[in-house]
Amino acid sequence: MKVTKWENGAAREEEDELAAEEPLEIRVRGRAISVTMRTPGNDGDDAELAAGFLLTEGMIRSSADVRKIALCPRNEMGNVIDVLLEPEVVVDFDKLTRHVFASSSCGLCGKATIESIQARYPALEAARQAMVDAPTLAALPAIMRATQEQFARTGGLHAAALFDCGGKMLVLREDVGRHNAVDKVLGHALLNDWLPLERHILLVSGRASFEIMQKALAARLPIVAAVSAPSSLAVQFAEESNQTLVGFLRQGRMNVYSGRGRVRM
Amino acid sequence: MKVTKWENGAAREEEDELAAEEPLEIRVRGRAISVTMRTPGNDGDDAELAAGFLLTEGMIRSSADVRKIALCPRNEMGNVIDVLLEPEVVVDFDKLTRHVFASSSCGLCGKATIESIQARYPALEAARQAMVDAPTLAALPAIMRATQEQFARTGGLHAAALFDCGGKMLVLREDVGRHNAVDKVLGHALLNDWLPLERHILLVSGRASFEIMQKALAARLPIVAAVSAPSSLAVQFAEESNQTLVGFLRQGRMNVYSGRGRVRM
Repeated sequence: MKVTKWENGAAREEEDELAAEEPLEIRVRGRAISVTMRTPGNDGDDAELAAGFLLTEGMIRSSADVRKIALCPRNEMGNVIDVLLEPEVVVDFDKLTRHVFASSSCGLCGKATIESIQARYPALEAARQAMVDAPTLAALPAIMRATQEQFARTGGLHAAALFDCGGKMLVLREDVGRHNAVDKVLGHALLNDWLPLERHILLVSGRASFEIMQKALAARLPIVAAVSAPSSLAVQFAEESNQTLVGFLRQGRMNVYSGRGRVRM
Repeated sequence: MKVTKWENGAAREEEDELAAEEPLEIRVRGRAISVTMRTPGNDGDDAELAAGFLLTEGMIRSSADVRKIALCPRNEMGNVIDVLLEPEVVVDFDKLTRHVFASSSCGLCGKATIESIQARYPALEAARQAMVDAPTLAALPAIMRATQEQFARTGGLHAAALFDCGGKMLVLREDVGRHNAVDKVLGHALLNDWLPLERHILLVSGRASFEIMQKALAARLPIVAAVSAPSSLAVQFAEESNQTLVGFLRQGRMNVYSGRGRVRM
């Protein structure tokens, strides 16, 4: 895809590749036991992912428990994989401790997922634009890091921070979980009656996933910036929601993946 | 806690701090809707996390929907937070798309979680030891990275790789999700009849969470190494499972958090 790369005051268009992110539903005995966002690739990787998941959930112990792992015929982008276990394998569905999607109605292909979420949270109006200067944006990671250094001593935490469009940091939160750091920041905004966050920027220390864009949309955030890469589904979601998505925001550079109208270059 | 730091052939004991990781159960109208592993801290952060979660799940829209957010009295390490919504807020539990723990019997405090998992997967026998030389271990990240560079062009992927104790890489997998990369590697091992992995090392590109140690134990892996930090719960789990846990394995250095008997220094 085409991205806008900005560096030292100059912007240029360039081709870039994104890490693909698509859901995989794992089924055992006709029952969906997990939907996970994963990197699609060759079908063998999906079979390994399903086998490893069942192993680490305690459902199977060795390859002898598995008769066959078969991808269901593709329905558009969505992927469903069926694990056929030997009949003597006892499956206790109640013992699954791992996260699963609670709702059976969640879309399985990225498209359906995005549509169901956007039905809940309509896309931003492109006309109602927050604007930020590229150099202001480029300075945000250093501000976040300096604030983190005051508190963090363990080096193992994800961070999320909310800024206004002038580059002023309003709240910073850390967590072992990326999504939790974002939830904390948005929860802080909600509890302080800052919603909707129509003139704000969310910065995350790691990658921008589909779920982070979805969370930002729930708070009506127009601009999301990530220090690392976005996934393909995050970019797709951002485009359809009229969100500005900036990735690789570090060392005075950035890539703008969608909504470049909000970034003054 | 005390960790063993190794650098350029020399080992020393040092005090180190870990990022804490504990579960938080979020309840709405008496019903547990999510259990998430999070960084505990002050109670205000937990309230923010709960509020942000409900916002981004579409349950609430503003602070006016929330009457009160109250931490339940602590039961040992476990944390439960109750969100009291205004009576007019309509809650559709079926619409929750976010990951929740499927099993209501999962432990809420870290201790209970660890015990329930270890009941399923007994601790390793300390006597049955794989051994690895510290310099061999120190060389693994470069081997993984070189192999990644052959394939990866997007910069947004987590990696996991399996090595033998001589430092030979057996399989490498990447994914947008850390846990998926580990599941793929372990699934590959299972499908190729390599289990139990009693003489092997698992290397992950990011942090070592509790869940990664749990996955390793399911495959009977004695040694887990992470390029970044482990969480406190990961270390606790590793100690009780007799697993060797190495963190910050990079630039010729490492910290050994548990099971140091398997690392020849």
